[in-house]
Amino acid sequence: MTSLSGPPGVSDVLALFRTTKSLTRADVMRLTGLSRSTVNQRLDALLNARMVVPYGEDAPTRGRPAGQFAFNSGRGVLLVADVGATGLRAALCDLTGTVCAEREVTVDVATGPEPVLATINGLFGQLLDGRPRADVLGVGIDVPGPVDFASGRVVSPPIMNGWDRFDIPGWFAEHYDAPVLVDKDANAMALGEQRSRHPDVSHLLMVKVGTGVGSGLIAGGRVHRGADGAAGDIGHIQLTVPEVEDEPLCRCGNTGCVEAYAGGWALVRDLTAAGKDVRTVNDVVALIRGGDLTAARLLRRAGRILGGAIADAVNLFNPRVISIGGQLAHTDEQLFAGIREVVYRRSLPLATRNLLIVRSELDPRAGLVGLSLLLAEEIFSPARLDRLLATEV
Amino acid sequence: MTSLSGPPGVSDVLALFRTTKSLTRADVMRLTGLSRSTVNQRLDALLNARMVVPYGEDAPTRGRPAGQFAFNSGRGVLLVADVGATGLRAALCDLTGTVCAEREVTVDVATGPEPVLATINGLFGQLLDGRPRADVLGVGIDVPGPVDFASGRVVSPPIMNGWDRFDIPGWFAEHYDAPVLVDKDANAMALGEQRSRHPDVSHLLMVKVGTGVGSGLIAGGRVHRGADGAAGDIGHIQLTVPEVEDEPLCRCGNTGCVEAYAGGWALVRDLTAAGKDVRTVNDVVALIRGGDLTAARLLRRAGRILGGAIADAVNLFNPRVISIGGQLAHTDEQLFAGIREVVYRRSLPLATRNLLIVRSELDPRAGLVGLSLLLAEEIFSPARLDRLLATEV
Repeated sequence: MTSLSGPPGVSDVLALFRTTKSLTRADVMRLTGLSRSTVNQRLDALLNARMVVPYGEDAPTRGRPAGQFAFNSGRGVLLVADVGATGLRAALCDLTGTVCAEREVTVDVATGPEPVLATINGLFGQLLDGRPRADVLGVGIDVPGPVDFASGRVVSPPIMNGWDRFDIPGWFAEHYDAPVLVDKDANAMALGEQRSRHPDVSHLLMVKVGTGVGSGLIAGGRVHRGADGAAGDIGHIQLTVPEVEDEPLCRCGNTGCVEAYAGGWALVRDLTAAGKDVRTVNDVVALIRGGDLTAARLLRRAGRILGGAIADAVNLFNPRVISIGGQLAHTDEQLFAGIREVVYRRSLPLATRNLLIVRSELDPRAGLVGLSLLLAEEIFSPARLDRLLATEV
Repeated sequence: MTSLSGPPGVSDVLALFRTTKSLTRADVMRLTGLSRSTVNQRLDALLNARMVVPYGEDAPTRGRPAGQFAFNSGRGVLLVADVGATGLRAALCDLTGTVCAEREVTVDVATGPEPVLATINGLFGQLLDGRPRADVLGVGIDVPGPVDFASGRVVSPPIMNGWDRFDIPGWFAEHYDAPVLVDKDANAMALGEQRSRHPDVSHLLMVKVGTGVGSGLIAGGRVHRGADGAAGDIGHIQLTVPEVEDEPLCRCGNTGCVEAYAGGWALVRDLTAAGKDVRTVNDVVALIRGGDLTAARLLRRAGRILGGAIADAVNLFNPRVISIGGQLAHTDEQLFAGIREVVYRRSLPLATRNLLIVRSELDPRAGLVGLSLLLAEEIFSPARLDRLLATEV
């Protein structure tokens, strides 16, 4: 049976305000085709809930155009946290997804969910800075591992010890009466990058090169999570590298994975073997920025290996833009030179002649921005919005 | 600006009839929420154009339930052709996409568009068998190469000599006053297989192993064509195979591509080198079916090599179903054993624990069925349907 959609509802009317500076009642009638009485009804619901306010209300002395209304982006806040392997970043965003305040801490994700989520919750408390918890309209968390998006549970993560099947939304439900979304870090980054920097591009591949290597796909303008939330697992594609005799063991238990050659942890391993004093991916970044030749050579090789996996992704998925983020993307051009060398040699001309390979511009905030956009889509969906409008202000 | 959809239109009402055996006016009111007068208006338009007819009209003696209406699947026909590297198959389908009559011929796609399209048009004439050309509501063609779906032009095909940028819809426009859709063969096969055999599966990878190797992706229930129509190019992923010293030259000009090891043409090359008398992929199939051990060994190796590329696709795309078609999929279990061996070893457990790897059941009709479904979606879209309803019957 086909699905039939009715006339524009209150969520559709709000969507107009969310994408426009200000509108009159007549504008809304024209844009929706709804009658004056229906527009008044929808708009009254939004005005009562203060989701929409008279335009310029926050700055009355500057003059206020009569009959104009605008989205109230300060009607509530979103709390988001981007969890990496060795550190996390938390932010408070307004309802347009703009980051208003931010905190960063070092924490090992493998210490398990309880201490990591408690750390995040502590940062959220600092970021709220006295604002009531009732102002929080949504909570978003991304993690460096596969997620079952519908339930918000991490599933069979290769590196997140103790997180398998952990109920992250359930944990936050004790603190906030708001929807909690959980996604894989590279998915959130892909969405943030596409919506903010490449809004006209429907097909984008985001590759995160940090401690590990992950990727997120935007297909037809939407995050492609796959059948089990496992899509975008570019870091565990296996490659044979002729110059390396024994395939290195990967954290996932297999050998010869892309991240076992090109991830930050693999560079730490190889640089340590070469006598360098490095322990984290940040040490590797410092070494590269300091001009260390061994580190530069390994980074170039990492680029070529990533290029092999990205060439496969280009052949299969044919994106318009490949955005590279993560700490190692922000070092020097060696990584990009290696990637481009292999992608342009190994992919068919049709798939590369309009292909852009760029450094993530949003990074290191791509995940935070993506999460806040995902949350906004969720809380302003028809079902959620009805609940929000029924709440006392 | 968000896009707003109005109340259910005539296309939505027709969609109800297309997915149901029969409906009354009251059924349509209940399913659409439209008023009686609007339902009458929509239904009258469909009845006038004979897209919908009183149910049982074709079999009056069997008794006819009063007030029931049904989709008139014989209101027109669809002509479709599935073009392979060395042969093509043409069919006449009714408006539900059911194949009513079919023809198959041997023809080399590299002879160029004019002779191949003339051959197709000749078969279409035979299939029409005296029916007027005005009955043809759509023409669909699939080809073994990348297609710019919007324009219906083949773009930079590795094996289709003389087809680059050829205007296939323009060629058919001289013969039929109906929309002409052109797609890559594996895309049409993927759609046919998913819609007919796996309708509850949103993410599917179709791999065609014939003379060459191609693939088509269904993502979120829709064909994923990518930014340039080049998606699904699994045959030109490059692999290093330790047991092979020199990477074989591929038809695309690169070396070490999947199809340079595992495509039908590569098996012809290797079997010829081993002293066997084979010239086409059908000869290879005959040799395998005859129990030739060299051919069986090469097929098993082809399976493992395909498995390597499919494992990459599983990691990146996380499909629920992988359907394998093409002549070599219909030989014996060696190919599947090789594929499964590598996919289950090289992909993460999360992505494989619910994964199905199956032989295409629709094959060799998967492309034809997929094309007729694509055509039905196109001609019953609101804009096209309006034009159809305005036509004199």
